[in-house]
Amino acid sequence: MQKNYQQKTLGILGGGQLGRMVIQSAISYNIDIHILDPDPEAPCKSICQKFTRGSLTDFETVYAFGKDCDIITIEIENVNTEALEKLVEEGKEVFPQPQLIRLIQDKRLQKTFYKEKGIPTADFILTENKEEVKHQAAFLPAVNKLGKEGYDGRGVQILKTKDDLDKAFDKPGLLEKLIDFDREIAVIVAKNPKGEIISYPSVECAFHPTANLVEFLFAPAEIPEAIETKAQEIAKKVIQELGLIGILAVEMFVTKSGEILVNEIAPRPHNSGHHSIEANFTSQFEQHLRAVMNMPLGDTSLRSPAAMVNLLGEDGFQGEAFVEGMDEAMKEKGVYIHLYGKKITKPFRKMGHVTILDENMDSLKSRAVKIKNIIKVKA
Amino acid sequence: MQKNYQQKTLGILGGGQLGRMVIQSAISYNIDIHILDPDPEAPCKSICQKFTRGSLTDFETVYAFGKDCDIITIEIENVNTEALEKLVEEGKEVFPQPQLIRLIQDKRLQKTFYKEKGIPTADFILTENKEEVKHQAAFLPAVNKLGKEGYDGRGVQILKTKDDLDKAFDKPGLLEKLIDFDREIAVIVAKNPKGEIISYPSVECAFHPTANLVEFLFAPAEIPEAIETKAQEIAKKVIQELGLIGILAVEMFVTKSGEILVNEIAPRPHNSGHHSIEANFTSQFEQHLRAVMNMPLGDTSLRSPAAMVNLLGEDGFQGEAFVEGMDEAMKEKGVYIHLYGKKITKPFRKMGHVTILDENMDSLKSRAVKIKNIIKVKA
Repeated sequence: MQKNYQQKTLGILGGGQLGRMVIQSAISYNIDIHILDPDPEAPCKSICQKFTRGSLTDFETVYAFGKDCDIITIEIENVNTEALEKLVEEGKEVFPQPQLIRLIQDKRLQKTFYKEKGIPTADFILTENKEEVKHQAAFLPAVNKLGKEGYDGRGVQILKTKDDLDKAFDKPGLLEKLIDFDREIAVIVAKNPKGEIISYPSVECAFHPTANLVEFLFAPAEIPEAIETKAQEIAKKVIQELGLIGILAVEMFVTKSGEILVNEIAPRPHNSGHHSIEANFTSQFEQHLRAVMNMPLGDTSLRSPAAMVNLLGEDGFQGEAFVEGMDEAMKEKGVYIHLYGKKITKPFRKMGHVTILDENMDSLKSRAVKIKNIIKVKA
Repeated sequence: MQKNYQQKTLGILGGGQLGRMVIQSAISYNIDIHILDPDPEAPCKSICQKFTRGSLTDFETVYAFGKDCDIITIEIENVNTEALEKLVEEGKEVFPQPQLIRLIQDKRLQKTFYKEKGIPTADFILTENKEEVKHQAAFLPAVNKLGKEGYDGRGVQILKTKDDLDKAFDKPGLLEKLIDFDREIAVIVAKNPKGEIISYPSVECAFHPTANLVEFLFAPAEIPEAIETKAQEIAKKVIQELGLIGILAVEMFVTKSGEILVNEIAPRPHNSGHHSIEANFTSQFEQHLRAVMNMPLGDTSLRSPAAMVNLLGEDGFQGEAFVEGMDEAMKEKGVYIHLYGKKITKPFRKMGHVTILDENMDSLKSRAVKIKNIIKVKA
């Protein structure tokens, strides 16, 4: 007999804030969640039905963890895909599919995929080591990216002139033309095994000037309708060409000439979709559940314009976290604080986020800045 | 040093669906929740930070449980208030206050309180036993209510004629004039220790014809503005006169002549506020947290008209629950399914609820009926 959703166990590789918010959604569906994470104090630890402490990159650990689950998914890309492939061979459902996680783990494979499939992306050159980068002075200014293990601003550097070439990474990576973009947008798209595909209205991301992390996000992105349509089409093309099941965040540059270039993708709930909890009819976390569990996908329209502010650990503070300014922020209408259950703060650590709803885009923007200045995570 | 919200432990007496939805909110604030419940499979069990299996009415159990917490609240009224009073004496914060829980536990004290405070309510007569009820033929038609332990339709009966008197309860209770009401509404109101009071727009409750449980709820209630204003005033007067900290659901009759009469109150999140998760700026569950933890209260306005349908265990089915019709319901825009994590269904057991958002009240109503017919909890 076919199992009802509530009788299936969903295993998640990774127990951080993304898993935590997936669990908040899963509670409404009675879905049992098992979590694997190396951190004994992972944000998901005390709210999942089973927590296993262990490495996400170790074959045996991942394999043993997956054996106990009906469906396995991820909230971080850096996992052992060989173990996931073995689980698929043995009949487990693993979404996103292991070979796609492997493709996305490696920015070199990712870029090559875009090129092969005709998905617009910045020009690039694959490089094997520092020596090869050094030969590409003519290609500058460029972004030098490590193929693997870049995450949250790590493994990415900008090489503007010949003088910068000395600091180039000395591992397999790529050089990408530095795009003089007008704005950066993201579209989240989802696909389930039934083949349904649905995308979210695009959002605009404003990055922290030094930490290379999203600082503000605004939904909807203020772009002409033609560009919005194009962005939606590109996001759908990416998930379609990948054949990926689950949720996919597609980050794109809008160039000054109105061109759209795919920057990076993430096959999981993503920072650019956090506002969807309050701002959209279906949150990205619920959508991810719906996609990997083969439920019907949910409506993605915006209920209200929204801004999202990441709460990063304040620079200069390390230790037991204390959130300053909660009361002042909580007094405001349409302000939603989400803390991630991390006991220890350190500079720029993602400790939480705040979503702000406001029908007026101008007041939304000024309120987002205000909230960011009110709430500080210190120690 | 004063503790931050995230450093306080909140104990909840009762681990059912109300506690479960409080926990879904509490996760966003990093609040540690301890649960006491006699059921080893209580809906809160696997999502709280500490679960204690034990009786809610036993002095020692409740006292020992509370000793470990900073703040203690309830999600069911039938708890040992003596233990809670001892905890208050020893410096714990207990909200709602134990003496108010005791007052509300006893419908005789509740009704007497309304009378003393000039809060409009149906006329009533206190009765000690069946014999006393039998002498009140002239007061019929009336509702005969047990003083204590009435809950979810139990302990309430309608006595229309003299012939019904034989089935009257034989315990301390009350006879209340049967009100020929036009509609039944509810207003949720909250108060925090700072003294802030805020109320939710009133909702309209439609009861199941035989099970005496809310079958449908519609927000906002379709009543004239003057009646809405009056309902808000009455709800605020009740919480003010009680001096209650926390959330209070005030159920009221609107009579055919436009009078408002308080029916019953519940000092906790309530079935009449379930829609607030998606329909209001602040959900009743988060509001309860804000109130008992002395956070600023949140805005209560409606973001969208909403309907709520209780998912009761289908009559004729008992055993391991299976939810029929999920897929069909999940395809619809603005439909939110909440299952309560109960493995076993039985006739009329509250297994979950569904909230439907729709800007148009007419289509909202027809969609609520449709959803109720689609989703069935069977075994």
